[in-house]
Amino acid sequence: MKRQAAAWVSGLMLAAGLQAADNTPQKAVAPIEPLVNLVEEAKKYGVDGKATPSPAKAKEEKKTAQAHAVQWSYSGKTGPAHWGELDEKFILCKIGRNQSPVDIRDRHAVDARGLPSLDVVYGTPQFAIINTGHTVQVNYPVGNSYIKLNNHRYELLQFHFHTPSEHQLAGFNYPMEMHLVHRDGDGNLAVIGILFKEGAFNPELQKVIDRLPKTLGKVERHKQVQLDLRRFFPADTRFYKYSGSLTTPPCTEGVWWMVFRQPIEAAPEQLAAMEKILGANNRPVQPLYARTLIKSWFDPPPEAVQEPLFYY
Amino acid sequence: MKRQAAAWVSGLMLAAGLQAADNTPQKAVAPIEPLVNLVEEAKKYGVDGKATPSPAKAKEEKKTAQAHAVQWSYSGKTGPAHWGELDEKFILCKIGRNQSPVDIRDRHAVDARGLPSLDVVYGTPQFAIINTGHTVQVNYPVGNSYIKLNNHRYELLQFHFHTPSEHQLAGFNYPMEMHLVHRDGDGNLAVIGILFKEGAFNPELQKVIDRLPKTLGKVERHKQVQLDLRRFFPADTRFYKYSGSLTTPPCTEGVWWMVFRQPIEAAPEQLAAMEKILGANNRPVQPLYARTLIKSWFDPPPEAVQEPLFYY
Repeated sequence: MKRQAAAWVSGLMLAAGLQAADNTPQKAVAPIEPLVNLVEEAKKYGVDGKATPSPAKAKEEKKTAQAHAVQWSYSGKTGPAHWGELDEKFILCKIGRNQSPVDIRDRHAVDARGLPSLDVVYGTPQFAIINTGHTVQVNYPVGNSYIKLNNHRYELLQFHFHTPSEHQLAGFNYPMEMHLVHRDGDGNLAVIGILFKEGAFNPELQKVIDRLPKTLGKVERHKQVQLDLRRFFPADTRFYKYSGSLTTPPCTEGVWWMVFRQPIEAAPEQLAAMEKILGANNRPVQPLYARTLIKSWFDPPPEAVQEPLFYY
Repeated sequence: MKRQAAAWVSGLMLAAGLQAADNTPQKAVAPIEPLVNLVEEAKKYGVDGKATPSPAKAKEEKKTAQAHAVQWSYSGKTGPAHWGELDEKFILCKIGRNQSPVDIRDRHAVDARGLPSLDVVYGTPQFAIINTGHTVQVNYPVGNSYIKLNNHRYELLQFHFHTPSEHQLAGFNYPMEMHLVHRDGDGNLAVIGILFKEGAFNPELQKVIDRLPKTLGKVERHKQVQLDLRRFFPADTRFYKYSGSLTTPPCTEGVWWMVFRQPIEAAPEQLAAMEKILGANNRPVQPLYARTLIKSWFDPPPEAVQEPLFYY
């Protein structure tokens, strides 16, 4: 099975050196806005149906959005159950029938052949981290890291964390989930979800934990640190694919979700450190409605001879 | 391949006699409202997120809906491009990213195993037909005809027609498409789409054509006629499944779509007769965004030996 699964994630390489030579100096690259500004994203890509606003209109809308930034949270009157009522731009949080996260169960999944191949090309840009108030997020400059789905490129914008996990596996939340958020030039989003379970110390995660931002809303840069995102990928790269949404307001739909079936490990102390800063920032699972999860792999056919689980 | 495909549509039987004996007399069954009243459907199942309104509220909303029924059409200022702006309840027509119809292409589809089996149990109730102004529709009383998806029952509410087809196969519209609309007790919709191509005379379709309603908005009943819906199913019952929407306002999402890959036939004169009464009542195809079409079958694996297409 592993050999089959490996074909889905066909390229995973460190391209930092190449990228640095190819591109303009990193200080010239505009910082990517944190997730919390997705109110504006909605305007650009979702709610008004237009791909890109005119620069003048975008500037005006940005000003308006900042003046009227809608507060949302993970509990109480501004919690997930009320997101759809907080702002008309959040309406999909309430009426959407293709929302994320979901409970991943094999009985709602099909074995599939023909899913676009996933190629992963991640570089190691300057480490830039921000506490948005809703999550801790590491930003990536455009042109550095990307994935390809059937040769169509989605840039890695940022990754961030949720404690506990947002997706469930067969009804279970895991202690943490990491989301790698990618976007193509037309504004289409593709997100990779990686679940964490308690286990061995995770040196790559520790680089993040050692630099958790002390202030809110400010990008903090660390020149000495280089993250190798390959180390966050599970050994078994089989995943579940489905059409979902952002798990935070405005809950924009049309998101190409890929959630790895194998959780990776982190030490209990590490998961506790993350939970301490994040609190409970997981949206509850949403109904699948008419959706079917698609496995990136084939399980052995039922007629195949099965090895017994235990030998006596 | 046919043998495999047949497994997906495992039951297809005429259960009219049984149903008539089991149920209350048909005159006691309330007529099902036509599609054009889906403004109310939206209130019940979509826009406000509630499954069922209180009887008092429902009555009040019905009155309001009738007083302010929003006009929509298939062209001009109330055409498909503007549906989302005609009423706030139609917003998904504009911002939805999981809309129907779509262009069905194999490169956006996966071969799948594990899709819920489709069981079809259609009876032959009294023939009741209505011209809603948007389509010609044959209504079914609850309890008479249904499908089962993984043993979960969806009642057949009605079927209706679009000329030309709404779904495309590899970029082509077909002259007509029939939609069989089913709903479960929670308000979830499952629709079967059947495409028509020019060919042999279709006796079953002729029963509909001979009784096309002369007036708008009035259910016309014909006691002598019995439709056998089996005759509208193609010989090859392989289909494409995806998560989509109603193709008319309010464009409610979460619809379990199944579109048969093999068109059935009707005579050119028959298709012309349908087109004459319906006009062009097809919504243009909508982007797939993050969706993947799921085939109900396996194509032969690429490594299998292929017969040459032509012998020289």
